[in-house]
Amino acid sequence: MTDTRSAPISPVDPVDLTARLIRCPSVTPEEGGALQLLADLLGEAGFDCVRVDRNGTPNLFARWGRKGANRTFGFNGHTDVVPVGDRAAWTRDPFGGEISEGFLWGRGATDMKSGVAAFVAAAVDFVCGTPPDGALILTITGDEEGPSKDGTVALLDWMKSRGEAMSVCLVGEPTCPDRMGEMMKIGRRGSMTVTFTAQGVQGHSAYPHRAKNPLHALVRLFDRLASAPLDEGTEHFDASTLAITTIDTGNTASNVIPARTVGRVNIRFNDAHSSRSLMDRLRAEADRVTADTGVTFAMEVDVSGESFLTPPGEFVRLVAGAVKAKTGGEPVLSTSGGTSDARFVKDHCPVVEFGLVGRTMHAVDERVPVEDIRQLKAIYSRILHDYFA
Amino acid sequence: MTDTRSAPISPVDPVDLTARLIRCPSVTPEEGGALQLLADLLGEAGFDCVRVDRNGTPNLFARWGRKGANRTFGFNGHTDVVPVGDRAAWTRDPFGGEISEGFLWGRGATDMKSGVAAFVAAAVDFVCGTPPDGALILTITGDEEGPSKDGTVALLDWMKSRGEAMSVCLVGEPTCPDRMGEMMKIGRRGSMTVTFTAQGVQGHSAYPHRAKNPLHALVRLFDRLASAPLDEGTEHFDASTLAITTIDTGNTASNVIPARTVGRVNIRFNDAHSSRSLMDRLRAEADRVTADTGVTFAMEVDVSGESFLTPPGEFVRLVAGAVKAKTGGEPVLSTSGGTSDARFVKDHCPVVEFGLVGRTMHAVDERVPVEDIRQLKAIYSRILHDYFA
Repeated sequence: MTDTRSAPISPVDPVDLTARLIRCPSVTPEEGGALQLLADLLGEAGFDCVRVDRNGTPNLFARWGRKGANRTFGFNGHTDVVPVGDRAAWTRDPFGGEISEGFLWGRGATDMKSGVAAFVAAAVDFVCGTPPDGALILTITGDEEGPSKDGTVALLDWMKSRGEAMSVCLVGEPTCPDRMGEMMKIGRRGSMTVTFTAQGVQGHSAYPHRAKNPLHALVRLFDRLASAPLDEGTEHFDASTLAITTIDTGNTASNVIPARTVGRVNIRFNDAHSSRSLMDRLRAEADRVTADTGVTFAMEVDVSGESFLTPPGEFVRLVAGAVKAKTGGEPVLSTSGGTSDARFVKDHCPVVEFGLVGRTMHAVDERVPVEDIRQLKAIYSRILHDYFA
Repeated sequence: MTDTRSAPISPVDPVDLTARLIRCPSVTPEEGGALQLLADLLGEAGFDCVRVDRNGTPNLFARWGRKGANRTFGFNGHTDVVPVGDRAAWTRDPFGGEISEGFLWGRGATDMKSGVAAFVAAAVDFVCGTPPDGALILTITGDEEGPSKDGTVALLDWMKSRGEAMSVCLVGEPTCPDRMGEMMKIGRRGSMTVTFTAQGVQGHSAYPHRAKNPLHALVRLFDRLASAPLDEGTEHFDASTLAITTIDTGNTASNVIPARTVGRVNIRFNDAHSSRSLMDRLRAEADRVTADTGVTFAMEVDVSGESFLTPPGEFVRLVAGAVKAKTGGEPVLSTSGGTSDARFVKDHCPVVEFGLVGRTMHAVDERVPVEDIRQLKAIYSRILHDYFA
């Protein structure tokens, strides 16, 4: 076995590896054999592999090279996938990994078994060619599509406790809206959900002056919140947004003014704010409405992640340069979109994201052009080459 | 039996009659023996009694004198009562009809078995004394506290089909806020409930510009509706009011902007409006928000009753005069409060309302001062005397 580990193994085909991963039914929170497949393959290529499971969530840590190396390049990704949804609407087996019409089909084809396969293939190729002066760390979780409480976070916690660290990290999520190579992510907006419970005084609809209607207060507050822009955008970020996602009262009696109602807003915010500064702002608006109406607001916040930015610098330029070298186009440095596990990694090292065109992610007939997977692997290989050059 | 009918019977004690009615468990829609008790008593006094039940709702029609008489005085009331609520909180049996501490206790003591007992006692006394030159009609329903679809409405429909008519009508509901005789009602505000279904386009909370958020549209519309007074009141009416009573979305996913939400308002309106003019006004406001947001509103209306007024004139002066004669105070001519069956009667003849202090109606330990019942009967007797004088 020692012989096998130290000997160069034949290059990993990222298309074949993606297909094999698709055949693992790893719908969150199922491991489905996907991490095991990768652990076996990386182990054979000389990586130290450790399963870092937490609370039943499967996670894989893999390092090639010495712990604590001065230059340690990290890749991050996930093998779990969202459910297939309306299976009857699929024209291919969502767990078949079938190749036809130039596409590889199946759940996870773009989000993001292909991305994981591409960086694993690039990493194995790289260390089996000219071994780098440094180390590679791959963190791969089985819970990015779920609550994400015991996935990448658990890997990072574990690494910290072991003195494992990455100098930089690239997350292999899909980042391109339409065309391969057109966009990379250098940050993400933060996301928070705030639940308001408006408490008034119940009464009869015929005598509203004797009641304090929590709905009148809530619609005033929410209309103000929805109408006032949070900002106009910043150098690297779009404007922050606020969406009311639900209001629920549950009062079926039209002659009764209810005592309370609940409403919720979701905020996607840029680097002009923090969840804390936004809570202060919401509290101030709520207090103004309370002063006018006597209705009080309890606020509960759930912060999915703060906004962050990896400012354009050496690492960003390196990744962008590799993308340009392989696709011919300069990728846009974006901070748009939803959240990703980069929001956890950013507390540990500079992090950027680059991956495929995400158009069919989460959709029926999720699929990826076979050539895009090969090109993605080539870009990742170039990034490794340039980083360790 | 013919002897009994034509002979004057001993005066009916309104307190005893109220107590006997309270012992009939006539929680809507149960008759509980209450209407039967009254039919027996009125029949003995020479009234023609007919049960005018419709769709299982019990109703009693009773006439003394000739059908089609030139002067026909009407009384209207109900024997059904609301549920006892928290029975353990009552200090007396809610169906016991107990007299203590100067009060008669029980469900319906004020709303409105006492009112019915008082006008039945006054009517029997009156016709057994000097029989009037005219007729008396008593309409008593077993469904005023419920849907009210087959109660007084059924009685009025039946009367119309039989050529039975009242010249004027007095509804015996409680009308006094604190002190016996201080207020009578000469009209009521209308009441309508409008349900808005806001239809937008579902989307991801991270990309609100791609969705059309029905909640943003609804809170804007409702804040405008709640903030703009409908009027400043009219000669005989308080200002109209609008109360938002519920908003319900049922969206548990904070990363999803829902496609639709439902909200409801209840409007109590005076004679400056009709349900139709208000619907036009709401539609115009909704259309303005649609123009700004692209979110459309479906509106469904349920009109409990239009507003009405029996303008101060001969009948109103007669009732007010009787109240003053017996209590010493001039009653306020009010149009405040919720709805009552007067909203149905007003389409048939001039109608006013006068009755007890309503403070404990619908509450635990509902009770009425024994003396108030006797005074109410005396006032009703005086009204009959003056009307036929």
